[in-house]
Amino acid sequence: MNSQAAPLRQRTSQLFTEIQTHICQRLEQLDGKAKFKSDTWQRTDKKAGDDGGGGVTRVLAEGAVFEKAGVNFSAVHGFMSADFAAKLGAAKEELPFFATGVSLVIHPRSPMVPTTHANWRYLELGDKCWFGGGSDLTPYYLDDSDAVHFHSVLKSICSKHDAEYYQRFKKWCDEYFFLPHRGETRGVGGIFFDYLGRDDKADLEKLFAFVKDLGFAFTEQYLPIVERRMSEPYTDAQRHFQLIRRGRYVEFNLLYDRGTHFGLQTGGRIESILMSLPPEVRWEYCPTVAPGSGEEYLLKTLQQPREWV
Amino acid sequence: MNSQAAPLRQRTSQLFTEIQTHICQRLEQLDGKAKFKSDTWQRTDKKAGDDGGGGVTRVLAEGAVFEKAGVNFSAVHGFMSADFAAKLGAAKEELPFFATGVSLVIHPRSPMVPTTHANWRYLELGDKCWFGGGSDLTPYYLDDSDAVHFHSVLKSICSKHDAEYYQRFKKWCDEYFFLPHRGETRGVGGIFFDYLGRDDKADLEKLFAFVKDLGFAFTEQYLPIVERRMSEPYTDAQRHFQLIRRGRYVEFNLLYDRGTHFGLQTGGRIESILMSLPPEVRWEYCPTVAPGSGEEYLLKTLQQPREWV
Repeated sequence: MNSQAAPLRQRTSQLFTEIQTHICQRLEQLDGKAKFKSDTWQRTDKKAGDDGGGGVTRVLAEGAVFEKAGVNFSAVHGFMSADFAAKLGAAKEELPFFATGVSLVIHPRSPMVPTTHANWRYLELGDKCWFGGGSDLTPYYLDDSDAVHFHSVLKSICSKHDAEYYQRFKKWCDEYFFLPHRGETRGVGGIFFDYLGRDDKADLEKLFAFVKDLGFAFTEQYLPIVERRMSEPYTDAQRHFQLIRRGRYVEFNLLYDRGTHFGLQTGGRIESILMSLPPEVRWEYCPTVAPGSGEEYLLKTLQQPREWV
Repeated sequence: MNSQAAPLRQRTSQLFTEIQTHICQRLEQLDGKAKFKSDTWQRTDKKAGDDGGGGVTRVLAEGAVFEKAGVNFSAVHGFMSADFAAKLGAAKEELPFFATGVSLVIHPRSPMVPTTHANWRYLELGDKCWFGGGSDLTPYYLDDSDAVHFHSVLKSICSKHDAEYYQRFKKWCDEYFFLPHRGETRGVGGIFFDYLGRDDKADLEKLFAFVKDLGFAFTEQYLPIVERRMSEPYTDAQRHFQLIRRGRYVEFNLLYDRGTHFGLQTGGRIESILMSLPPEVRWEYCPTVAPGSGEEYLLKTLQQPREWV
């Protein structure tokens, strides 16, 4: 393990708690009506020799702006099964692990306001450690300038840390948040990265600074979009389209999302894992969109990832 | 291949078409308002040397009784990948296959009326062939007599054909329709069976007769329950509970259902596969039920499969 890993573990976990608090405060301020409720939970891990860690799940429901917003923090440790260790690129043997992260999904009430998801995490597995994460935007009625703003903030943070990060992680995001059975991306992307710092020469302190910048910039990335679009009027038909599109969100999270499967298979806290699912969803048989409509514009955009900045 | 397999393939496919027609007619009669719409689709399979077969998807939406009912028929053929053949118990090599089946999911509008699912299928893979299928009931406000009726009809059909079928297939159903992350079954069960007739000594004609009986008895199994409960009044809170429970249905189908995964991974027709998903669904964080309530009674029942007949 990298010599800095022991203090880094604690500092990262502390950082993620601060990012959780920061984001929840800003969301509450903007919503103006609903407040986050907080649940502290503990994980039991017989082999870990103690409680196995735990987390704090914070959920805001039925707000004026946000129909459901969940911001999870967790820091867990124990022993990872040989199969799972192998899936994460380690030798196929049971290994001690530590994982801390913050993850959030925000489902606004208005179909004019995009849904967003973000996650930043730090893992130690055996003698390796790394950072992962990202954030992405899922609009219903796409205004190009929303995607441009979201990506611009991401690009400017990435560029401060590494000239190649943005292009690399933007592409990774488009590839990861893809529904093969629908032939479309989940949304207009963002960035996604994993295993960052796993090679022995990595400067973990620099990566810590990168993830810190991303976490604290998230509100700047997303909230201006919410503020700009939350007062736009919308029709029942537009709300209806939003509910159908939320179905695609559920399909991605349950069929493909590694984080969801990881959580379910390692006995994570179910309500914290599935907190990401939208509050109200519809599935209809063969829904159609009108030629030239906003609905069609979204679908076409999702079929062909675009360079936004 | 069994010497009777060539004519059996056609007769089974014909039988499943007749079962589809029978069930759709009876559902339309009972609903009284909405009619089934029919989509004929074709599958393309380059290796099959022809069109690869196809199917007929029939969907009734926004009925008086049924919020969404889908009844699929398909008969497809081609070459199955080595990986998939191995998953189905054959040697790990590319093999010619033929599959025909009818599958249905009915989502009533009223939370007093249970959801149901049924499927009967016949497969040929390399030199083997077999039948599979089953039907199960998913109530929201459980009246024990509904589960007893559903299981009684199944037991009486099973007993006509084999003294052991009902117990064996009832248990298989409880095991299959189980959500490990929730620690509960999807509903109050029914029967589930697979690979029936795959050994060389099987009398496929007898199994054909069994599946035929099951298919034509389905309406007798389910519709009396609908008729008895469709006029019961219900509250918004009860409808709300139904929508939350429908979320569990989605979780099962997307996380665990083999049929769904098989269809998605073999390039099946997406809208026909995902037709099973409920029209309106809710997810909430940590929903609770009142002690002694109907909601609690359902949850307790799902945590411990029961002998209904």
